[in-house]
Amino acid sequence: MKFILILLFTAFVSNAQIQKEQLDLMPWPQNINLTAGTFALSKGFKVNITGNPNPRIFVGATNFLRRLDGRTGLFFEQGFSTKINENPEAELQINCVRNGKIGLYEDESYQLSIESNKIKINATTDLGALHGLETLLQLLQNNSKSYNFPTVEITDLPRFTWRGLMIDAARHFQPIAVIKRNLDAMASMKMNVFHWHLVDDQGWRIEMKNHPKFTQMASDGEFYTQEEIKNIVKYAGDRGILVVPEIDVPGHASAILTAYPELGSKVLDLKSNSVESKKQSAAIANYAIERRSGIFDATLDPINPKTYQLLSEIFDEVCPLFPGDYFHIGGDENNGKEWDANPKIQEFKKKNKLANNHDLQTYFTMQLVPMLKKHNKKLMGWEEIMTENMSKDAIIHAWRGTNEGLSAGGSLIKAAKNGYKTVLSNGYYIDLMLSVESHYLNDPIPKNSILTPEEKARILGGEAAMWSELATPLNIDSRIWPRTAAIAERLWSNENVTDMNSLHKRLKTVSFRLEELGITHVRNKEVILRNISNNQQTSALNDFSNVCEPLKIYTRNSHGIKYRMYSPFTLFADACTADALDVFDFDTAVNKYLENKSLENQTVVTNYLKKWIAMNADLITLSANAPLIQPLLPLSKSLSDISEQLLLVIEKKQTVNPATMNDLLVQCNSKKNADVELAVYNSLKKLL
Amino acid sequence: MKFILILLFTAFVSNAQIQKEQLDLMPWPQNINLTAGTFALSKGFKVNITGNPNPRIFVGATNFLRRLDGRTGLFFEQGFSTKINENPEAELQINCVRNGKIGLYEDESYQLSIESNKIKINATTDLGALHGLETLLQLLQNNSKSYNFPTVEITDLPRFTWRGLMIDAARHFQPIAVIKRNLDAMASMKMNVFHWHLVDDQGWRIEMKNHPKFTQMASDGEFYTQEEIKNIVKYAGDRGILVVPEIDVPGHASAILTAYPELGSKVLDLKSNSVESKKQSAAIANYAIERRSGIFDATLDPINPKTYQLLSEIFDEVCPLFPGDYFHIGGDENNGKEWDANPKIQEFKKKNKLANNHDLQTYFTMQLVPMLKKHNKKLMGWEEIMTENMSKDAIIHAWRGTNEGLSAGGSLIKAAKNGYKTVLSNGYYIDLMLSVESHYLNDPIPKNSILTPEEKARILGGEAAMWSELATPLNIDSRIWPRTAAIAERLWSNENVTDMNSLHKRLKTVSFRLEELGITHVRNKEVILRNISNNQQTSALNDFSNVCEPLKIYTRNSHGIKYRMYSPFTLFADACTADALDVFDFDTAVNKYLENKSLENQTVVTNYLKKWIAMNADLITLSANAPLIQPLLPLSKSLSDISEQLLLVIEKKQTVNPATMNDLLVQCNSKKNADVELAVYNSLKKLL
Repeated sequence: MKFILILLFTAFVSNAQIQKEQLDLMPWPQNINLTAGTFALSKGFKVNITGNPNPRIFVGATNFLRRLDGRTGLFFEQGFSTKINENPEAELQINCVRNGKIGLYEDESYQLSIESNKIKINATTDLGALHGLETLLQLLQNNSKSYNFPTVEITDLPRFTWRGLMIDAARHFQPIAVIKRNLDAMASMKMNVFHWHLVDDQGWRIEMKNHPKFTQMASDGEFYTQEEIKNIVKYAGDRGILVVPEIDVPGHASAILTAYPELGSKVLDLKSNSVESKKQSAAIANYAIERRSGIFDATLDPINPKTYQLLSEIFDEVCPLFPGDYFHIGGDENNGKEWDANPKIQEFKKKNKLANNHDLQTYFTMQLVPMLKKHNKKLMGWEEIMTENMSKDAIIHAWRGTNEGLSAGGSLIKAAKNGYKTVLSNGYYIDLMLSVESHYLNDPIPKNSILTPEEKARILGGEAAMWSELATPLNIDSRIWPRTAAIAERLWSNENVTDMNSLHKRLKTVSFRLEELGITHVRNKEVILRNISNNQQTSALNDFSNVCEPLKIYTRNSHGIKYRMYSPFTLFADACTADALDVFDFDTAVNKYLENKSLENQTVVTNYLKKWIAMNADLITLSANAPLIQPLLPLSKSLSDISEQLLLVIEKKQTVNPATMNDLLVQCNSKKNADVELAVYNSLKKLL
Repeated sequence: MKFILILLFTAFVSNAQIQKEQLDLMPWPQNINLTAGTFALSKGFKVNITGNPNPRIFVGATNFLRRLDGRTGLFFEQGFSTKINENPEAELQINCVRNGKIGLYEDESYQLSIESNKIKINATTDLGALHGLETLLQLLQNNSKSYNFPTVEITDLPRFTWRGLMIDAARHFQPIAVIKRNLDAMASMKMNVFHWHLVDDQGWRIEMKNHPKFTQMASDGEFYTQEEIKNIVKYAGDRGILVVPEIDVPGHASAILTAYPELGSKVLDLKSNSVESKKQSAAIANYAIERRSGIFDATLDPINPKTYQLLSEIFDEVCPLFPGDYFHIGGDENNGKEWDANPKIQEFKKKNKLANNHDLQTYFTMQLVPMLKKHNKKLMGWEEIMTENMSKDAIIHAWRGTNEGLSAGGSLIKAAKNGYKTVLSNGYYIDLMLSVESHYLNDPIPKNSILTPEEKARILGGEAAMWSELATPLNIDSRIWPRTAAIAERLWSNENVTDMNSLHKRLKTVSFRLEELGITHVRNKEVILRNISNNQQTSALNDFSNVCEPLKIYTRNSHGIKYRMYSPFTLFADACTADALDVFDFDTAVNKYLENKSLENQTVVTNYLKKWIAMNADLITLSANAPLIQPLLPLSKSLSDISEQLLLVIEKKQTVNPATMNDLLVQCNSKKNADVELAVYNSLKKLL
């Protein structure tokens, strides 16, 4: 009820003049001039479009109407927006000067003006107008009975031209429905590049009419047809999003080599004649798609002309599916083991004066440049492709950082200085399950940057990377959202927009509104918890999931051993997310209490502690009929135990043995249970 | 907590010898011989397949493994089932004598034998084996720490050969993902016919390469590509399901005639020369796809040879997409208005001695028979196609009943007696929002049936009909499930399986398990309620939704006026379902209390009443920041008011003025608010 009262208060405030800080806009626009007034929304609300836009604006305006109608239940009379100037008297007037082109450096700016009886969106291109419609949706306010928009003038444009999300559809295949809803969510956050990781050791995901072996042998039947790909490209384009496909070579090639083993670099050990060795030879003569995670040896043979012939044929078939200017060829994590073990390859290196595997890979990659150029595509690759001899036309995708023993964002700077256009993903690896704060504060061009304006201009932007070793259609949305919205803001908004309280407040609304686009991060959590509970009540599980986070930085599946691609991802760790819901609020409560031990501040903290004690009791009860709850009990008990002691200290003012307390705290820091960690650990530590 | 204790009790019981009545099997098998013992499920569990099955069994076995692994979190070692006899030592042995053929009259029987260390599924065809796997999944039991199957011998086969579900993808388009998850759910309930209603007044949903105008002009861009259709047919076939397409003619033709207005029966009124009349003439010279619900006039011209040419071309393109033996041509609800108003058509009737429009329609339909025969398809149509001259090869789809002024199931009997094969949908219209009991007790061959064995044999089975005037991808699953499981049981199980308490108990588990197949009936309810609540707490809304049901028998959208196809279906009525969750339990509690006014029985009833009083208070509070809650308050207040009075009577033993009580009860019977009715009304009435 307290929660309700707070919201009630918010409601009353929103009846009064709304303040800029109360708006839940994301990414935060460049200029906002809020005035005292409102535009009242009614059943007769219509939209009219003028100018010379691309027809995608009609799709956008129609979707806008449906979403606004779905939120408000007003039963708008207008069903569709289908042509220029069909409702000259409409309250919402959109004007676009010209057709927007999907790609980099396009004008995406817009002006949104809301007066008490008229709303105008003016943009150079329809792409800007689409962004304006998203901002307008975010401005919706209500009192107890009706909906309105505040009167406001907004002018807005993005800071970076590349605001991307990569989805790995190779490790776990992600059906069309997953891709579409994520494109919708991207568009709602004004993101404009969808990087589609389509091929990796675990599968080949593109229908190939001229090379059917790829999907027959290396997809488990899970791939996108060419028609589906074209459909996605159109769907993305209608939302202002460029699709950049990736086929990862020469490493990460297990799937490719499952279909074409003769193009692998592996050599058979034919020296020994023992039965054992023969068996081994026979065994390693083939490649197989990988079921585990990790960096594998399978690598294309860079000295076999047939390798290039196949790649050329692949590009000839795949490039026409993607009208954009960029093609990502991967190029990462080639461990070089097969090359090192192959005498012919070593000979080739010597003969061609290639000092090392890195140079050999550059030789390989340079063969692909003209193949792509033939289709008017620029080559993009992960940062490993960057060597002295690499074409300056290539786009360098910076991904390594402190986890790989390099400086954070170091490759991005290096690429820009070396004359390459570059995109940042280091710091945006959302599969690492790190905090949203860490991604949010990761600026492609930090304030202390020493780059020249020309070098800065080479930094195109950034891209959230959603690798799917541990992400299935059931849980992937909860890995991507709402946190990617923070990255979208970093790439769109002014560099000074960094207030963490504001971020958290706005993310709650963003998270809620993502549901209307079909994003399943909230609803599927309940589904997983119901399964774990064995159809019992899920409230205790839900409480626990709000303080637990999946193990971070690939420790959940250390060395890729525990989980295979077909393992169950229906477990507690799959219901949990980074940025567990109660963690920020509990930490805020602890900080306030430690600053001022008022009864009010104390109660907020002790209510959490009491909740966790009751939760643990409930989990024990539930576990009698739910084997999947058993693994959670040790950590739940630890939280309950320390909560009991803390209550004694805080409420009863008792003294507790510090050693005991410390032991209990150590238990709370365990990472041995159920692939999760207790994310309130640091806050609990403060209380000791 | 009480709930938890009940479940705890269930858990203990399941540790002891389980009783047949405790099994949550659905549809209930023909023979079950349960013995005292269990098969313990472990990580090493594998499946092996022998015999000569269709390869669909490998898809089925792989999906079986994934679902079982997802439920239990055991991390099975076996990832895929891919070939015959690949794991001879496997604990689960499946043997199929021969390849099953998708269609009617195929052998779908299976034998399932579970011993303490071995499970065998023996079936004539893979279709039977797939059913056996579903039964096995339903047999899963657990104690607090592990999973097992009870030892049992089951022999099973269906009572009827046609166990269908129709989904209307014309009124509201239902994307591929919706169709796929419903096919999965159908298979889990051993249903074997998916009737796909693809064309109606509101849209044409099939890509036509030779007639692109259909989707260009009459689909709003929402249609299935031919590749998608083939993909669905394959997907259904892998689950033992026949797909029967429907193109509804000659009525329901607004979409067809939007593309080909020249083939309509409408005549222009050219007599008058007034400006007004000219405008009208110009206006009616065209057809447009309908945005509302209802029976419309648009009807194909039965005397224009080009009509038949177009239909023939349509069948030539559409039939090859569907390998099954049946094609549904609709034929229902031709209101004859355009035919009556067309002098040439009237002349044609006279000349050809066609007494009425019904005979003219038979003339029309008979032209289609050879067009379909050319593609080895039998014609199926709604019961209106049945006239004296109709081919006996046609299958009659019986749908009309008491709502249409006919006797329930009357047309089915008539068709069987007239020598037609026939399928029952009257009584299975799940869009009417009637109780699951009414569908469950609707037997295609009631016990008092006076049909001869030959006539009975013509009754192929039945089909649940999901019309989508009020069903969108967001809410459609909650209209279909879990209730269609009861219809599936009626069509599969022995006619004597009719216990209502057992049905309700088992439906709870079925409903839970449908979630693992992606069915969204539970998860999307929360999504709708969150939107209504404006991101506040949803528990009060949820409580209210558990006693409210959408208005029944098309009264929600009386005369098709309130809702258009693009109206918001994000309202409270869309979160509510038939068979509201608390209704059966509250009625049971009331009955028990009225039988025996013990304190225990009283408390169960009064707890409901108290819950509803608190709920109403919460809804009022929430409504301060949620306009969409306002329309619910009158009915919520009525429930709260009568609950208060009943508490006075029951707990305080006070006397309340009967007239007052009656007034309050009348308020509870209101159907004026929010498109819902209070489904506990009858139980409340009993308490007065």
